[in-house]
Amino acid sequence: MSENRTELSQLGEFGLIDRIKSKFQNQNSTTIKGIGDDAAILAASEKELLVSTDLLLEGIHFNLSYMPLQHLGYKAVAVNVSDIAAMNGTAEQIVLGLAISNRFSLEAIDAFFEGVQAACKNYNVDLVGGDTSSSAAGLVISIAVLGRVEKENVVQRSGAKANDIICVTGDLGAAYMGLQVLEREKEVFLSNPDMQPDLEKYEYLVGRQLKPEARMDIIHELRDKNCLPTSMIDISDGLASELFHLGKNSNLGVKIFEDKVPVDHDTFETAIEFKLDPITCALHGGEDYELLFTINPVDYDKIKNHPDIHFIGHMHNDPSQHVLVTKQQTVVPLQAQGWNHFGH
Amino acid sequence: MSENRTELSQLGEFGLIDRIKSKFQNQNSTTIKGIGDDAAILAASEKELLVSTDLLLEGIHFNLSYMPLQHLGYKAVAVNVSDIAAMNGTAEQIVLGLAISNRFSLEAIDAFFEGVQAACKNYNVDLVGGDTSSSAAGLVISIAVLGRVEKENVVQRSGAKANDIICVTGDLGAAYMGLQVLEREKEVFLSNPDMQPDLEKYEYLVGRQLKPEARMDIIHELRDKNCLPTSMIDISDGLASELFHLGKNSNLGVKIFEDKVPVDHDTFETAIEFKLDPITCALHGGEDYELLFTINPVDYDKIKNHPDIHFIGHMHNDPSQHVLVTKQQTVVPLQAQGWNHFGH
Repeated sequence: MSENRTELSQLGEFGLIDRIKSKFQNQNSTTIKGIGDDAAILAASEKELLVSTDLLLEGIHFNLSYMPLQHLGYKAVAVNVSDIAAMNGTAEQIVLGLAISNRFSLEAIDAFFEGVQAACKNYNVDLVGGDTSSSAAGLVISIAVLGRVEKENVVQRSGAKANDIICVTGDLGAAYMGLQVLEREKEVFLSNPDMQPDLEKYEYLVGRQLKPEARMDIIHELRDKNCLPTSMIDISDGLASELFHLGKNSNLGVKIFEDKVPVDHDTFETAIEFKLDPITCALHGGEDYELLFTINPVDYDKIKNHPDIHFIGHMHNDPSQHVLVTKQQTVVPLQAQGWNHFGH
Repeated sequence: MSENRTELSQLGEFGLIDRIKSKFQNQNSTTIKGIGDDAAILAASEKELLVSTDLLLEGIHFNLSYMPLQHLGYKAVAVNVSDIAAMNGTAEQIVLGLAISNRFSLEAIDAFFEGVQAACKNYNVDLVGGDTSSSAAGLVISIAVLGRVEKENVVQRSGAKANDIICVTGDLGAAYMGLQVLEREKEVFLSNPDMQPDLEKYEYLVGRQLKPEARMDIIHELRDKNCLPTSMIDISDGLASELFHLGKNSNLGVKIFEDKVPVDHDTFETAIEFKLDPITCALHGGEDYELLFTINPVDYDKIKNHPDIHFIGHMHNDPSQHVLVTKQQTVVPLQAQGWNHFGH
């Protein structure tokens, strides 16, 4: 792939850590001491602390045959920041564990960290520590993220009330369709390596799969508008599955309207091309990392004109009834068929 | 192995998370909300926050042919707590990422979490979140730990001064010799499966390898005696390698005396049996998780009678000279040949 190949063994573990350290500058006032001791030191804060972690494994969560390492580094940070956003918090630090097999060169690892760095810069997050190891199998990425939020602004999954309006940001199903396109192109390439993938038409979808963004912009805008969600979650496993989480944790039922669920034109067209139902892709396709939240109806006027927030339904008192009202006005039960990492 | 085997797929990812959650009770006042949302919520604190992370991979960091899963769970927590101890802090929360291949049954994962639970109880640490995934290769464990310490009590690697006394806890090389014994018994077993391993004689060494403890007892005792180390690190890669870290970060040289380095009788005897030099095992064998720290000489009287703290040398002004004084009074350069995870 690359012209130069430097083996990681030439640098050694400590050499690699020094190299990574030299590329990152701390940006947050809460970061007192980052990489370079047994643990990072962070300042005391009057805010509450949020902590989350995500594991990303080659062959399970990503496929390097179509996932550039730079994008992978970016995505690994973004999906963690998204978890903090979903609590209405601001991510400030990450620690990163990385296990690398010897098929990766130093140049490949540099590309990965360029992505990590770009995401850290974009989300104003400091890489304050980590662990590196060799791997007998594929690449393993583990990130834990720390965020902060004022006590009165924490938003949990459990805070929704009956009649709260269900809101979703952006559009759904695009990351899933992007994955379908990438998988198809990989098959085409494998059967005929001379074929160059034609991804231009699918640029938006592929971008949604390869380089998702945490919706911190929405978190900031909601604060500016003084609109505090009553419950919130990020959409990693699919809208339906996340709605079940809000319903279960708030002990309420969910009612959404098919014609309100935001589906991008490209997602719609490509789903049809793949003989898939676009609404199914939007309900069950994962990895969009949009925000799903509920608001008190009195807050509706504050955000009703926001171009990127969609009002798709409301919460109600019967926790056993999670329903979708179709375009034909038929009421059907919602199915939660989120990702099952342990098969069927 | 076990009589009952329940597949993880019968339970599913959310079922597994619920099962884990039900086994853990939060013990720390700083834990506001643990498992069950996009992120855990921790209380604000006037103390500084410490964060560290460790990756443990099957085939790299542990071998399940002799590492019982319960011990593995315990060790995964202990090594993280040890990183917080090395900053003079107290671990309070962990998040745990776990990737599991389908050869593991629910009973096996239960055994792993029994170990995690035992360690959490022993060190008074709360499991507040995590991530579970399938794994295409072996078991992957990722833990990030959060600890707290009063600002004035943080101890870094960089704080040593010339003439500070170098102290080490416990004894060294035992975990390494334990690993040698286990590796030998595995080979014997593989060549003749009817042979039962005879580990009784090596119980101490094997225990040091399989179930290391973080030395929180020492941290508490040093506080009780009002003795604040000037620099500190835990011994995961081997004494020599950690001495180099203290020297480099404090910009000083290190001088230690061979006859002061604590080596247990069993370690000594078994090293001889394996035709290894006991002091080499103590200097370069990893995974003892003892504490290496420096104190101002004025504090010596406070801890000089402690049965488990050994005074092995002192820091000096020339950062280019890290030396060992042998039993024959020869001064030889120390070699830092710590673990290189990327091989040679």
